Amino acid sequence: MTLIVQKFGGSSVSDAASIKRVARRIAETRRQGHEVVVVVSAMGDTTDDLVDLAQQVSPQPPGREMDMLLTAGERISMALLAMAIHDNGFEARSYTGSQAGLLTDSTHGQARIINVTPGRIQQALDEGAVPIVAGFQGVSYESKDITTLGRGGSDTTAVALAAALDAGVCEIYTDVDGVFTADPRVVGRASKVPSLSYEEMLELAAVGAKVLHLRCVEYARRYEIPLHVRSTFSASEGTWVSSERNPGGHMEQPIISGVTADLNDAKITIIAVPDEPGVAASIFQALADAGVNIDMIVQNVSEADTRRTDVTFTCPKGDLGRAMQALLDAQERIAFASLASDEDVAKLSLVGAGMRSNPGVSATFFRALADSGVNVEMISTSEIRISVVTRTERAEDALRAVHTAFGLDADGEAVVYAGTGR
Amino acid sequence: MTLIVQKFGGSSVSDAASIKRVARRIAETRRQGHEVVVVVSAMGDTTDDLVDLAQQVSPQPPGREMDMLLTAGERISMALLAMAIHDNGFEARSYTGSQAGLLTDSTHGQARIINVTPGRIQQALDEGAVPIVAGFQGVSYESKDITTLGRGGSDTTAVALAAALDAGVCEIYTDVDGVFTADPRVVGRASKVPSLSYEEMLELAAVGAKVLHLRCVEYARRYEIPLHVRSTFSASEGTWVSSERNPGGHMEQPIISGVTADLNDAKITIIAVPDEPGVAASIFQALADAGVNIDMIVQNVSEADTRRTDVTFTCPKGDLGRAMQALLDAQERIAFASLASDEDVAKLSLVGAGMRSNPGVSATFFRALADSGVNVEMISTSEIRISVVTRTERAEDALRAVHTAFGLDADGEAVVYAGTGR
Repeated sequence: MTLIVQKFGGSSVSDAASIKRVARRIAETRRQGHEVVVVVSAMGDTTDDLVDLAQQVSPQPPGREMDMLLTAGERISMALLAMAIHDNGFEARSYTGSQAGLLTDSTHGQARIINVTPGRIQQALDEGAVPIVAGFQGVSYESKDITTLGRGGSDTTAVALAAALDAGVCEIYTDVDGVFTADPRVVGRASKVPSLSYEEMLELAAVGAKVLHLRCVEYARRYEIPLHVRSTFSASEGTWVSSERNPGGHMEQPIISGVTADLNDAKITIIAVPDEPGVAASIFQALADAGVNIDMIVQNVSEADTRRTDVTFTCPKGDLGRAMQALLDAQERIAFASLASDEDVAKLSLVGAGMRSNPGVSATFFRALADSGVNVEMISTSEIRISVVTRTERAEDALRAVHTAFGLDADGEAVVYAGTGR
Repeated sequence: MTLIVQKFGGSSVSDAASIKRVARRIAETRRQGHEVVVVVSAMGDTTDDLVDLAQQVSPQPPGREMDMLLTAGERISMALLAMAIHDNGFEARSYTGSQAGLLTDSTHGQARIINVTPGRIQQALDEGAVPIVAGFQGVSYESKDITTLGRGGSDTTAVALAAALDAGVCEIYTDVDGVFTADPRVVGRASKVPSLSYEEMLELAAVGAKVLHLRCVEYARRYEIPLHVRSTFSASEGTWVSSERNPGGHMEQPIISGVTADLNDAKITIIAVPDEPGVAASIFQALADAGVNIDMIVQNVSEADTRRTDVTFTCPKGDLGRAMQALLDAQERIAFASLASDEDVAKLSLVGAGMRSNPGVSATFFRALADSGVNVEMISTSEIRISVVTRTERAEDALRAVHTAFGLDADGEAVVYAGTGR
């Protein structure tokens, strides 16, 4: 008997029929002899509808009240799911984040988990019931106010509970069959990756693979919780993410985990910056103070006569306005000439273990880009990833070219289901 | 400075515009120098929508999960109301029933309040904030599970909080201007009653006046909390309910509080019951064991030769099936001949202080019924009420005739707004 934490996203519980389907799946796991703890998101569009309602009432709602409002969503889905499980012959009890012991800090809308005290969940398990826990929510250990965990919050709830309850595996149910070598919506012949290390999954999540959130993978890695990403709509094995590369023992697994294209970044170039010590520090301090997340950074070789250089970096499109303002405010101190911004960029990344020790990898990568006429504007590499910035309109061609060049194309087309969870 | 508890029903917060109107009203009360605690119901049809959803998922949902589901409704309305109050320049914080200290027993769907420990509400008041409390809900002090209080639950929440916080008044906002001498939807010229004693209001609520629930009035009477029933849609004074008859000092107030017609009862006649000691006891024990609420009871004078009699009583239509079954199950023991039931009845009641000491009251009442050709099938009286059972189709005529006979008709038509709260 294994304790399994199963997390179902909003698209898996979008209406009464899908809630009943999920309930049957949970009951099936119980009949196989496992203990199950379920984490569930709000139904389909509930969260969007509640956000709309708040906007009708108030232009800038306080974070505390926004969290109180949004957490109504999981309350509805978890109660309905518990009812449906009852009808499958198992006792089920729903618990809010607060009741389940998800203690967080007080950052409304973006709370961090401080501790998990799942006494009531353990008691429900001991009494033979299936506990259903609201994803995405917790309670501040200081103010006792309700909090939400932000994007990917339900995945994080699931992994945090799995760690606190010492579960054997945390299953993340989604609308795709697992983690793919590329987005199957773009690369029709993308293939499912049977297994990944936490590090590879972290890199993939960081460069735009949407199937798992960075934070959830970081949590899983810290507590060594094996993740199994799989489809709500099929019974087939999905993708395992764990500390071992090959828990399933696939002998000839390629070293490449996948290729991603991320269209959410913008590029800023700071023109004619004095090339002297401390300048980079003042640039990135100004951006950090404005809460701007920086990704790739490139600094040109300085011109010999002027001793000035250009610094280019990427940041999320949503941070672009703040970044520009922060730099303009610091223009005198940094002493740059001007700024240029560009939203029409895509970040293409290749992720896989042991890239550095395989010199052929970068050669193949850049050859594929060149052959398909894709111009590279920035380059950044790590132990297990190569990223380049290209024009947005060339991103899909580039993605397909690289995917084919590394022999990742599957025999058939990948199955894609509609919708995404939170 | 008075502490005022203000309760707003579902029809007062049915959409973003009405939530903003309620927020302005609360802010106005604060600007007048009062402390305010707000109790709010779920928005408009939210509760019905959630019940529908549950029925789509499960034929017989467990009570615990039904309560978890339904309490999402107030969570939404209270968070939105808190946001709107913020925009009026006051800090507002929403609290679930559990957070507000509404401790109940574990009877899901129909929980009774055991204790109120409003520490967080008092703290919010001390810090100058407006606490917004979810009506209708609490938490079981034994199981820590979420509970709901059943019909009229939000009114009861408001009164219970007013008692625990020692508030000066509990204002019940609704879609009518106060308590009327008759249902203004039926009797166009019904007039608003300026003030009532708790006892009169209890009688009115018991005989079908829907504006306040029995339970809330009982609670207010026990803790001597003055109630002020008034309209969300106008600034005029409503109806005061308190231990004094005339807190406002109306010198010539008529002794009649109102006339009601209740169509929710059914009538059962037990035919040819032996007229001997203990028979009534076994009849009403059998009904009590089946959970049937009995209202009026009439026993005919026994026939001298057979020493048998007929017993007639009324009960809620919803209890009729159970009542008939319980009596049939006990037929051998009670030794009656047969049963007759009748759902086509209305209970017409006249409520007012000091009726017994005013012999003219019953005379006027029965004369009015006779003059309008209404046949009386059963009669029951108390210190402050006379009730009769008539045919349903005659109820409205009878209501208007009695209303006019007691000089209750107002000069103009009463204003009626749409919808009802919970």
